Amino acid sequence: MSKFWSSFVKDLVPYVPGEQPKLTRLVKLNTNENPYGPSPKALAAMQAELNDNLRLYPDPNSDLLKQAVASYYGVQPRQVFLGNGSDEVLAHVFNGLFQHDQPLLFPDISYSFYPVYCGMYGIEFESVALDAQFQIQPTDYARPNGGIIFPNPNAPTGCLLALEAIEQILNANPDSVVVVDEAYIDFGGQTAISLVDRYPNLLVTQTLSKSRSLAGLRVGLAVGHPDLIEALERIKNSFNSYPLDRLAIVGAAAAFEDRDYFEQTCKAVIDSREQLVGQLEGLGFEVLPSAANFIFARHPEHDAAALAAKLRAQGVIVRHFKQLRIDQFLRITIGTPEQNAALIEGLSGV
Amino acid sequence: MSKFWSSFVKDLVPYVPGEQPKLTRLVKLNTNENPYGPSPKALAAMQAELNDNLRLYPDPNSDLLKQAVASYYGVQPRQVFLGNGSDEVLAHVFNGLFQHDQPLLFPDISYSFYPVYCGMYGIEFESVALDAQFQIQPTDYARPNGGIIFPNPNAPTGCLLALEAIEQILNANPDSVVVVDEAYIDFGGQTAISLVDRYPNLLVTQTLSKSRSLAGLRVGLAVGHPDLIEALERIKNSFNSYPLDRLAIVGAAAAFEDRDYFEQTCKAVIDSREQLVGQLEGLGFEVLPSAANFIFARHPEHDAAALAAKLRAQGVIVRHFKQLRIDQFLRITIGTPEQNAALIEGLSGV
Repeated sequence: MSKFWSSFVKDLVPYVPGEQPKLTRLVKLNTNENPYGPSPKALAAMQAELNDNLRLYPDPNSDLLKQAVASYYGVQPRQVFLGNGSDEVLAHVFNGLFQHDQPLLFPDISYSFYPVYCGMYGIEFESVALDAQFQIQPTDYARPNGGIIFPNPNAPTGCLLALEAIEQILNANPDSVVVVDEAYIDFGGQTAISLVDRYPNLLVTQTLSKSRSLAGLRVGLAVGHPDLIEALERIKNSFNSYPLDRLAIVGAAAAFEDRDYFEQTCKAVIDSREQLVGQLEGLGFEVLPSAANFIFARHPEHDAAALAAKLRAQGVIVRHFKQLRIDQFLRITIGTPEQNAALIEGLSGV
Repeated sequence: MSKFWSSFVKDLVPYVPGEQPKLTRLVKLNTNENPYGPSPKALAAMQAELNDNLRLYPDPNSDLLKQAVASYYGVQPRQVFLGNGSDEVLAHVFNGLFQHDQPLLFPDISYSFYPVYCGMYGIEFESVALDAQFQIQPTDYARPNGGIIFPNPNAPTGCLLALEAIEQILNANPDSVVVVDEAYIDFGGQTAISLVDRYPNLLVTQTLSKSRSLAGLRVGLAVGHPDLIEALERIKNSFNSYPLDRLAIVGAAAAFEDRDYFEQTCKAVIDSREQLVGQLEGLGFEVLPSAANFIFARHPEHDAAALAAKLRAQGVIVRHFKQLRIDQFLRITIGTPEQNAALIEGLSGV
């Protein structure tokens, strides 16, 4: 603590991202990146923009990308908000839509950045326990609140909530913003963006870091009623006029336009996941049903931290959370078939 | 206003950036971009990074770039903070270092984002009048305050404050953070980074958008005592773990390493500025002494708004601020010799 700090700074408990190792020979199954590269059309679009025009500011509204997202989902550009990764989008959401008298609700097992944002913006929250099968129960969210947020599929469990259950939560909370954080939706779920025109209290966030293989580019988005988007735009324009650079705007737009590559690579990840689940179950693991590009698994006879250390020693990194209820699970990103084979090899003897 | 908004959102008065026209044939002298492209080595570094590795998250700490900045300025990497443009860096500075009981001080004529940040974070401020020659008077900052910030050279005047005057402000305010916003320092000033080891209350911010020709890439930085940097890192890690993308990290690092190109292009801009000042004075303009890549000029016989409109009609955009004391000035970015000639041509008949 320094006398120069604003007083809230000393109480901040920052988020800890998964390790980004500088050794490139590791099999990196710890941060849910896509094992396949971005669309070649996205790379080509960035290539074309990589020139002296980088001396110029980007379009502060990123209209090209808003239009690409709007076209893809059949919404209006003014229903789309963009940010420097979905983490920035979520930060603005917590700041602009969740500071109310009642506590924010989110699952007890969920994205661990949510309580960090609450600390940043002084938002009280109540965590709502997942049921014994690690599922979200919509009826648990029918209680006074100043907002609701949950990932779908949930992280780090990978479990999917059906659109009907989401509608149940929306209908029970007409005076609260309900944010569905769809970082992983393209690996087996249906997006709730189809509901935004019917529910003015629904905001859907997505990222280009997972299904569109652009974690290195930092682009995220939100789709919802223009009134919700306006709050986010006001905050963005009071914070940083140009959150997306020129390369990110064109690369992300091209990634949305290349549906074929997107569908192919999503299918490849889903196929690998189903194969990997079978192999892990063959080794005695219990695997939660996953609609994501990762699985959440535990072994009844082996300690999860010990398994993670054993894998690490063999050059395979997975993620282990030292958190109540889930400290015996490993979160394992779906890799290429070769990476998955290295994982299974690393578990040999289990 | 929507019932879903956090209450502060309705009172936000967002920043309005200079126009980014979509017509490319305009002579764009309105947002202080560099007329020369980025270092070819920066473009080459980004080229080398434009590949399938974009599927992976960037280094959340951007160590490569921190090291490049630290080497350039002869400081330690832990004295360096990085952000998504200096606007994001400044936002974190206002949030983390300027929320105190006393009001923040900044010049009455200054970067117009400062009061916007104050609105965002609920910071009271007092604007301190520049003197009749539009200069900062250090003695005006010897009064109770919760922090001080000013651009050096100042914007939109272009006027430089000498390091001795900055030291005078630092010495008069040992209990306040003094932020020197050096967006334009490389066009004729001396950086205050040379003072950070002696003044724990000094933070210097810079951008790669001006002298390093990378406005399109969004990279900014701050240098200061590790205690000040720690506050910014805590906020950054409670907001967005990965503000800089993979391309920005390598491009910005290469730009710092290419001193020759940097020095050449800065010199070309300075030479053009001196030539342009002479031409404008020849047309009867009064031009404030500029150490920036823009000049601030008024004509005793012509209304500034009318001049801006006349130039616009001829395809030349400059910036005019409808603000007390400066509404008869134009802020004109230094272009290439050809762009400057187009400006002078556009003013013919004045």
